Amino acid sequence: MSASGFAMNIAGDHAQVVLISVFVAVLCLCLVIGHLLEENRWLNESTTAIIIGCITGTIILLLSKGKSSHILRFNEELFFIYLLPPIIFNAGFQVKKKQFFQNFITIMLFGVIGVFISSSIITAGAWWLFPRFGFTGLSAQDYLAIGTIFSSTDTVCTLQVLHQDETPLLYSLVFGEGVVNDATSVVLFNAVQKLDKSKLNGWAALRVLLDSLYLFSTSTALGVVAGLLTAYTLKTLYIGRHSTVREIALMVLMAYLSYTLAELFHLSGILTVFFCGILMSHYASHNVTQSSRITTRHIFATMSFIAETFIFLYVGIDALDIEKWKLSKLSFRTSVGIYSTVVLLISLGRAAFVFPLSTFSNYVHRRADRLSSISFKHQVIIWWAGLMRGAVSIALAFKQFTYSGVTLDPANATMVTTTIIVVLFTTLVFGFLTKPLISFLQPHHTNNNTSHGEPRSPKEDLSLPLLSLEESAETNILRAKESLSMLIERPVYTIHNYWRKFDDTYMRPVFGGPCRDQSAC
Amino acid sequence: MSASGFAMNIAGDHAQVVLISVFVAVLCLCLVIGHLLEENRWLNESTTAIIIGCITGTIILLLSKGKSSHILRFNEELFFIYLLPPIIFNAGFQVKKKQFFQNFITIMLFGVIGVFISSSIITAGAWWLFPRFGFTGLSAQDYLAIGTIFSSTDTVCTLQVLHQDETPLLYSLVFGEGVVNDATSVVLFNAVQKLDKSKLNGWAALRVLLDSLYLFSTSTALGVVAGLLTAYTLKTLYIGRHSTVREIALMVLMAYLSYTLAELFHLSGILTVFFCGILMSHYASHNVTQSSRITTRHIFATMSFIAETFIFLYVGIDALDIEKWKLSKLSFRTSVGIYSTVVLLISLGRAAFVFPLSTFSNYVHRRADRLSSISFKHQVIIWWAGLMRGAVSIALAFKQFTYSGVTLDPANATMVTTTIIVVLFTTLVFGFLTKPLISFLQPHHTNNNTSHGEPRSPKEDLSLPLLSLEESAETNILRAKESLSMLIERPVYTIHNYWRKFDDTYMRPVFGGPCRDQSAC
Repeated sequence: MSASGFAMNIAGDHAQVVLISVFVAVLCLCLVIGHLLEENRWLNESTTAIIIGCITGTIILLLSKGKSSHILRFNEELFFIYLLPPIIFNAGFQVKKKQFFQNFITIMLFGVIGVFISSSIITAGAWWLFPRFGFTGLSAQDYLAIGTIFSSTDTVCTLQVLHQDETPLLYSLVFGEGVVNDATSVVLFNAVQKLDKSKLNGWAALRVLLDSLYLFSTSTALGVVAGLLTAYTLKTLYIGRHSTVREIALMVLMAYLSYTLAELFHLSGILTVFFCGILMSHYASHNVTQSSRITTRHIFATMSFIAETFIFLYVGIDALDIEKWKLSKLSFRTSVGIYSTVVLLISLGRAAFVFPLSTFSNYVHRRADRLSSISFKHQVIIWWAGLMRGAVSIALAFKQFTYSGVTLDPANATMVTTTIIVVLFTTLVFGFLTKPLISFLQPHHTNNNTSHGEPRSPKEDLSLPLLSLEESAETNILRAKESLSMLIERPVYTIHNYWRKFDDTYMRPVFGGPCRDQSAC
Repeated sequence: MSASGFAMNIAGDHAQVVLISVFVAVLCLCLVIGHLLEENRWLNESTTAIIIGCITGTIILLLSKGKSSHILRFNEELFFIYLLPPIIFNAGFQVKKKQFFQNFITIMLFGVIGVFISSSIITAGAWWLFPRFGFTGLSAQDYLAIGTIFSSTDTVCTLQVLHQDETPLLYSLVFGEGVVNDATSVVLFNAVQKLDKSKLNGWAALRVLLDSLYLFSTSTALGVVAGLLTAYTLKTLYIGRHSTVREIALMVLMAYLSYTLAELFHLSGILTVFFCGILMSHYASHNVTQSSRITTRHIFATMSFIAETFIFLYVGIDALDIEKWKLSKLSFRTSVGIYSTVVLLISLGRAAFVFPLSTFSNYVHRRADRLSSISFKHQVIIWWAGLMRGAVSIALAFKQFTYSGVTLDPANATMVTTTIIVVLFTTLVFGFLTKPLISFLQPHHTNNNTSHGEPRSPKEDLSLPLLSLEESAETNILRAKESLSMLIERPVYTIHNYWRKFDDTYMRPVFGGPCRDQSAC
């Protein structure tokens, strides 16, 4: 018997090693099956992982004769401390910053205002409908929590189908909303948990709003500082001179440190690590050697990929925790009623903000160019992309309705099982339909959108008058006039452009990054 | 407050987040300081990490007013399940296989026979000397365990100073012995722990030997199978076609799976993961895309680096766990006596096998070429390189003398503190002296050894007659005669050569790897 075999003996058995082995082996299986199904029309990685998870859970249940519920229980700590940070950091690190910031206002509308609208509708709907099925026992705070739990979307399924190069605007909106939505719903959920239950009034709502604003700004600031500090350290010390391993380690550790520091100061680690990722890919990754740059990009992607697959697997296995099912004493009809109510409310709550906010966004961008507006088909895809519920919902539900994964209250147990069912249903059924739906809505538009989004963007026109001194005066005046009218019509682009100038002049020389060619701007 | 903030509240406080933040922050500090001290003559990464660990431990102690002993306690599970596997796997992955296998017999002499000799001497010496200082209370099994605990070396310090290209033979011996030694001492320790205390006789010794042999062969086989399976999967499915992330994830997960499976079957995970690493770098890493190859190499090196730094940091912090010190009720004089006895026994035990076994190895290799023999200066360096004790010693000591890190027995507490002191002393003091000693022993030999080791190796002469058909018959006959005499004189080289032929003909076409140029063989 070997070393960690002994370590296990202290705990009385091999349980942990068995558990790790099973999980790692099943993860490998998911990888290989995911690879084989890559070109499949209906299945994707998430649904595969959930199905394999369910199968694994069944096998474990059968082997342990129904005693293994403890092993299969969802562990929020594991989720929030180890699995979520790499996913969010990688989102920030790989995001196409230009598109993200060009569509910043629309993304924020969807990701912040959208969550508020959606959770209000879900809360109100649940409050009104749940008692009609004979399901009672939830407090006002529980209903508020339900609203936030079912407002956190999981856009992974859709993102696997969309292509960043084919539909850049759509991809950027779905991707950006997904990240901001995660952060908003966790922040909102925490604000709801902190609410004084006796005082639910207008002031409380205002406090939730102010709390969220404070969290947003401080968390972002911490992430930015962490990213800049890493970039500055790497640039000044030029750590790659002695060892590439050290610079890779420093980037990974600083990214994780930003998350844990945010948690330490009771900020939103998700937002912090997301902005840290953006800053690191913008500055720090230019201060390392070529091989470190390739490596960090792959490390973060791989960690995120493993964490994501692990979560879906875990959700699948967790669904087989039979104790929860025993506790929830509702009839089959009531249960189905509740499940369908929640799914209906999710669709309604999402429709209630996607279509109005898209129209609003189109109205704001109306003057600039018609082609960058969000078409109705795209609105449907955005609506659909956010119907899936994922691991964040499960983690929040466990947080609200259990104590360390255990609950003895039937109403709470019902809410946990409802969350699991909703996550399974939306991921599997809606996930199955995503590929066909999108190919139905965008049958032959694969290359058209590229020609809309990119070359039409007025960045070049704006930046040239300020940078190129060699050109003729006439051209310059013409361009200056254009850019003036642009400034009036498209404030976001203009702010973005001034940021680029500021970035080139002050930030990049200090924190690193390639000096842009004037013509490439 | 954010998500994992809540997760922590379940446990009642922020303790885990605080702990992770502190560790990650201090790790970053170690990285940066290690970089700044890169060219320093006296300090190296390990000693820096231990010193920073001690400082951190002191600060934590002061801040928590002496209450934090629980936080600072060494956790064997963390060590054996999470920190050791990446280090050993990376050792296998980065090892220069040609040199490792050319010096295989010498490495095995040092790493296996050496540990047996060294632990016998330390056991006998401790048994004889400890009671003379008035220190009693240890069982026969404890003494046997002490022998294995203090036979596990930590060659990191020396390897940081030696250079693989300058002194390939020396580097390969020190490196190879370090890995084999770790495995042997853990295997031997486990065999000792399984001993029936009432029957310590010749049969028991034989059983320990047979047990170890069984573990060696099965663990190696498992590692080889895991490595070949990964290579075969990557080659057949060509996973990088769809996603480089998936192939990287598969390599990392399969490597870890081999370790946990070994632990599951009560084998030696260290050996398994080491051979899995060798096989993966030999076959699997040729079946992935170029960027994945760069990435995996760096990922494994980075993980190993972080784990190593973490361990040294941890050992430093652990030294400040005051409860252990309070329990050990010996006088200052007795304590110093025990510490110096152990350090003395370590040096003796090591000298007792390095010099005789080197002489033996030189005798065996005598006929071939004088220049690949181990000079006396090199013997001194090999002896010195293995004087440092590290994290494995600490982990084994905690395993033997505590129960989940806690002990109430004064004799056991004394052995734990003795181990910590010995590790600190050897790493700090001997570590400090390593750089000066080696530059004293090898003042201007930096480039001579390269010219000895490489071009003199007779591989080329051996392989050509079997592979190149274009050459003239005369040359071939001449070469054949040479290689025949070589076969008689240098069996290891010849075996190695036949292995290369087998590898090229049967293994590489199935499991991947570049087809060697005939001239490059």
